Amino acid sequence: MTQEKFPGVFLTFEGIDGSGKSTQCRTLAETLKSHGHEVVLTREPGGSAGAEEIRRLVLEGDPDRWSAETELLLFTAARRDHMERTILPALRAGKVVICDRFADSTRMYQGLSRGDLRGAVDQLHALMIGREPDLTLLIDMDPEVGLARAKGRQTAEERFEDFGLELQQKMRAGFLSLAQEFEGRFRVVNGARDMAAVAQEITALVTDFLATRG
Amino acid sequence: MTQEKFPGVFLTFEGIDGSGKSTQCRTLAETLKSHGHEVVLTREPGGSAGAEEIRRLVLEGDPDRWSAETELLLFTAARRDHMERTILPALRAGKVVICDRFADSTRMYQGLSRGDLRGAVDQLHALMIGREPDLTLLIDMDPEVGLARAKGRQTAEERFEDFGLELQQKMRAGFLSLAQEFEGRFRVVNGARDMAAVAQEITALVTDFLATRG
Ligand SMILES: Nc1ncnc2c1ncn2[C@@H]1O[C@H](COP(=O)(O)OP(=O)(O)OP(=O)(O)O)[C@@H](O)[C@H]1O
Ligand SMILES: Nc1ncnc2c1ncn2[C@@H]1O[C@H](COP(=O)(O)OP(=O)(O)OP(=O)(O)O)[C@@H](O)[C@H]1O
Ligand SMILES: [Mg+2]
Ligand SMILES: [Mg+2]
Repeated sequence: MTQEKFPGVFLTFEGIDGSGKSTQCRTLAETLKSHGHEVVLTREPGGSAGAEEIRRLVLEGDPDRWSAETELLLFTAARRDHMERTILPALRAGKVVICDRFADSTRMYQGLSRGDLRGAVDQLHALMIGREPDLTLLIDMDPEVGLARAKGRQTAEERFEDFGLELQQKMRAGFLSLAQEFEGRFRVVNGARDMAAVAQEITALVTDFLATRG
Repeated sequence: MTQEKFPGVFLTFEGIDGSGKSTQCRTLAETLKSHGHEVVLTREPGGSAGAEEIRRLVLEGDPDRWSAETELLLFTAARRDHMERTILPALRAGKVVICDRFADSTRMYQGLSRGDLRGAVDQLHALMIGREPDLTLLIDMDPEVGLARAKGRQTAEERFEDFGLELQQKMRAGFLSLAQEFEGRFRVVNGARDMAAVAQEITALVTDFLATRG
């Protein structure tokens, strides 16, 4: 899977929960379409029929149902299916693939928060996936901003319960250190601004990137 | 998973389709129980609640539904769950675990028949499973013997369709070469005899093995 070169471009969005990834994915897809690109908007976990079924299996039922290691294998199986059935065919056809979360989320969630599986995550990725995105947009912000946004929507109480501010702080730091580790493909965008400002910066970054790729 | 030492003993059965594995597993389980051992009889794919669900996902629907690689990841996830929930707890408790097919079947079926995945099979095993059986009984026989047995049952026509004699010949050779590769833990048993004769040889081999383990 690693070696093949494709005419398409593979873009991913990463960031903590509620940082605006899905919102910005949709906006970028519309913008690139209006510039004449063929765009495939997809997401993880999921993104192909088989991957969605695996996703249901992972997310259903008791949270202790699967160990961190089994969950990692299941997510890797889902990603393999997603790559084969959705992402690679689109890249071969010269399309721009925009994916809402990808392997960096696994590096964070399975690699950091559940046990210390980062080594296994990377080895599995190298063995069974083998491809990194061409460009990754990290929407960075203090998790308190997300909390404040949720408060603005008067659903603060419930949100606060689930939010796990300390864990989100750890995730934020983890994503920033991934951005350093893979600095060639990461662009860090300040997400603590209004949607249009964030979208404008992302459009500029992606347009530049597509121009340098020719 | 690799390092831990256990008081229990982990036995597996391998061999081509219809060679008598399930029959001999059941007989051996009864024999060892009658000798006072605590026995857990299990099988792959499956053998734990989560693994059975993954198995259903793999086996249901269109045969092209999953690529060989995705299937391998799903079977490895199922095996990891089976190890964690069924096999290792029994070995820790000092029981004899008898498993109807295990990783050697994956080495054969995913490693040989579907693409050339043997390298990936071994790397995934080392990374996520890390444990080999203490003893593997390979029930060896010419696939024509299984065919003749099926003919004796007047279901020859259908069996012949499904049997894929050439593939079974390839599998037989593959299992024999695995037995050489892992000669320390493999015992090859001639399965082309009546059930009682096969069972007697297996009982003798396993009794010897348990005696040397003390
Ligand atoms: N820049 C912004 N300013 C204010 N609100 C925003 C902004 N971006 C997104 N939102 C709102 O915040 C919420 C979370 O946004 P979104 O669903 O895009 O985040 P996400 O990163 O995809 O979240 P998740 O990780 O849960 O999938 C939504 O209600 C969205 O409308
Ligand atoms: N030694 C034997 N002689 C004659 N028939 C046998 C012998 N051993 C098993 N059988 C019969 O052959 C058939 C296949 O046996 P069994 O189900 O044990 O094989 P298996 O290796 O588990 O097959 P599978 O790979 O399909 O699970 C059964 O009907 C069984 O009763
Ligand atoms: Mg989202
Ligand atoms: Mg059987």
